[in-house]
Amino acid sequence: MPPMSAPARSPMTRRVTTSPMIRLTRSGCTEVAVPGNNCPMEFEVAPTTLEFGETGIAIRWSNGHRSRFHTLWLRDNCTSGGDKRGAHRTALISDLDPNLVVYDAHLNDDGDVEVSFSDGHVSTFDPGWLLANCPEPETRLGRSRRIAHFRAGTPLREFSLPSAGGDEHGDLLDAVKEWGVALVHDVPGDEAGTEQLAALIGKVRDSDFGRLFDIVVEPDAWESSQSTEAQDPHTDDPYRYSPSGTSILHCVEVSTTGGDSLLVDGFAVAEQFRDDDPDGFELLSTVSVPFVRHRAESVDQGEDVHLVADATVIAVDRDDEICGIRFHQRAFGPFDINPAIMGDYYRALIEFGRRINDPVNTIQLRLEPGQALVYDNQRALHGRTAFSIAGGRRHVRLCTIDRDQFHSRLRRLREELERPGADERLAVGNLS
Amino acid sequence: MPPMSAPARSPMTRRVTTSPMIRLTRSGCTEVAVPGNNCPMEFEVAPTTLEFGETGIAIRWSNGHRSRFHTLWLRDNCTSGGDKRGAHRTALISDLDPNLVVYDAHLNDDGDVEVSFSDGHVSTFDPGWLLANCPEPETRLGRSRRIAHFRAGTPLREFSLPSAGGDEHGDLLDAVKEWGVALVHDVPGDEAGTEQLAALIGKVRDSDFGRLFDIVVEPDAWESSQSTEAQDPHTDDPYRYSPSGTSILHCVEVSTTGGDSLLVDGFAVAEQFRDDDPDGFELLSTVSVPFVRHRAESVDQGEDVHLVADATVIAVDRDDEICGIRFHQRAFGPFDINPAIMGDYYRALIEFGRRINDPVNTIQLRLEPGQALVYDNQRALHGRTAFSIAGGRRHVRLCTIDRDQFHSRLRRLREELERPGADERLAVGNLS
Repeated sequence: MPPMSAPARSPMTRRVTTSPMIRLTRSGCTEVAVPGNNCPMEFEVAPTTLEFGETGIAIRWSNGHRSRFHTLWLRDNCTSGGDKRGAHRTALISDLDPNLVVYDAHLNDDGDVEVSFSDGHVSTFDPGWLLANCPEPETRLGRSRRIAHFRAGTPLREFSLPSAGGDEHGDLLDAVKEWGVALVHDVPGDEAGTEQLAALIGKVRDSDFGRLFDIVVEPDAWESSQSTEAQDPHTDDPYRYSPSGTSILHCVEVSTTGGDSLLVDGFAVAEQFRDDDPDGFELLSTVSVPFVRHRAESVDQGEDVHLVADATVIAVDRDDEICGIRFHQRAFGPFDINPAIMGDYYRALIEFGRRINDPVNTIQLRLEPGQALVYDNQRALHGRTAFSIAGGRRHVRLCTIDRDQFHSRLRRLREELERPGADERLAVGNLS
Repeated sequence: MPPMSAPARSPMTRRVTTSPMIRLTRSGCTEVAVPGNNCPMEFEVAPTTLEFGETGIAIRWSNGHRSRFHTLWLRDNCTSGGDKRGAHRTALISDLDPNLVVYDAHLNDDGDVEVSFSDGHVSTFDPGWLLANCPEPETRLGRSRRIAHFRAGTPLREFSLPSAGGDEHGDLLDAVKEWGVALVHDVPGDEAGTEQLAALIGKVRDSDFGRLFDIVVEPDAWESSQSTEAQDPHTDDPYRYSPSGTSILHCVEVSTTGGDSLLVDGFAVAEQFRDDDPDGFELLSTVSVPFVRHRAESVDQGEDVHLVADATVIAVDRDDEICGIRFHQRAFGPFDINPAIMGDYYRALIEFGRRINDPVNTIQLRLEPGQALVYDNQRALHGRTAFSIAGGRRHVRLCTIDRDQFHSRLRRLREELERPGADERLAVGNLS
């Protein structure tokens, strides 16, 4: 059977509809990419023409958009097979007849799209559902993530620790999604305080360093964060297949000189790098290098480990959007990339690393007790300046939440608060 | 500066070495791809010629292999910057001079490779370390994973619950790595028994359904596993960015008719599919589709979720080796791929799904109390036949371990047991 773009065996049949307009509310408002669409709270769109052929149907909507739905897509998504978005789907794709064709399609008296298949099955579809799930590339791009870049001088979004489920909670998650970081005040200094904030983001990950990790200066440091040294901006856990998603750095105590926090927007730096050096960007986004953590002894916080992850420094998604950064100069293993491109790769990485360390890209701030940074560990690189403990003590508590757990919470909260964007295509991070 | 394969500004200088042979033991035995090499416990290899130019050095070894090491790679890996495989690295790649060149290289009196750079720095390298970290593609391919495929009739590797740290423990992990599944006997039926087995694999993941999930028939099922229905072979958690890695299905009680376990080797099926239908394989390994779990209410085991992961059904790694499967017919969301390839994609997926469900590819077994399957959730698809609870009760306990935690344990155990293969390139799974 030819693909849909090739001539079908039967000519497409066109029907002009007389259906009422469909009222699409909030959650549908970003479904269709309409030039100049400023995302109104609701707008109206209706099918104006319905064509069909053996390979599927095509609907022209009143806003000019045209959606093609393939025969097998329609049959697969028939509601008689159960809910596609739940756990109780009963119909199996492997049971579909690959040679199935559409025999007829029309708008029925209820305003639904009714499709008859060659196996005798008849499916009806809510036009609003079809529009919301339109597989055309421009519809998908219309759900692109909305983010804003930061650099030195960009003010951080700030919050007082919100209660769960309200608008402030939604605003906090939106800020972390949009800016890659937010500053939360009034977080109680005990572990329960950290947990209270973490619970707003998602389930805490039980990581190699436990659920909560108290970063203090340790005489027998096994981790460079346990020193007084400066930490160049980096992402945590690059040697894990799925690094930390959203992290929390909760300042419990600080009475030292120095030890300021550093934040760098890896997405902003990578985007600029793509503009300035497309070849270098290509190398950093397509060539994998090893990240390694090899600790042959167990420590208080965890067992011995030998973690190795091969990954690109910059991850781009199927739509060529930057979706994750993995960069930690103290965790690169010896590169095993082809010697023929080794020099070019190093030069690209050196340049990218210089930009990451450029003060013009860096927000520097001093965290005070009761403040916490909530940041996207696969976007907002974090570091700190060196400090002296002669003048006191520095205690910062770290915990981390899997990226998909944060995104799940973000979607559910938008649904609960009846805000748009539950279908926004979020940045999935940098998975190896 | 030209890449290494182009003419260097200065001609390569060749030195013939007079160094003693290097004795490489176990862990080095797979480092170099030598045709017909049957991985002896030790063999001898030495540098025979050392060439250098501005862009780096090249070593010809006594077994004929030639390794190129780029100037920047050498400078980056200089041991003066700290251990590349630990957490205490101090040298930063972003501080490297991208225009650095090699001025001189020779074997010194200790038999080490001594390299002088244009910045005045001198580094020495153990030739054995250089060989073990040779970045040539064929060296990398020599570390390819070693796996064996299973199908109907293949006997499962079986173990009695081993104690931690011994040879049996190593054999169990090797079996799971190699075959994708192993059957463990004599696992105590209480939760401590499950935990005891899990601790051999790695840290238990606190998942959406908790640490341990008791699969029993529930009158108010929120999960299809809580019914008596058949479950077609699938991988768990496909809607997570990083699905379950190694899973344990521990049979606590079974007195029902039916409810046999099904296992399918997704790697074997995918490899065969690649041979039979390269175009279909290309679609399933390059086109991402959405996997969805949307549960608007919380349940005993966890909160409400709206998880969405875009991923290919088959993942291949940078060396084009199949490294992960993500396939769950009840968790596919409506596909949002380009309508122009929708039909071809569906036909490929239908064919792949039919093969997954083909009895010729399926091991069917009845788990008895005290037995547990340990399986690679991103390779070995699991399912079950329908059953009736009229005759009794069926209770299977599930828990899961992150894939990189299992691999870390596998490497550490090989190191502790002085077995080869700590540097084997393992299948990283299917990350979205």
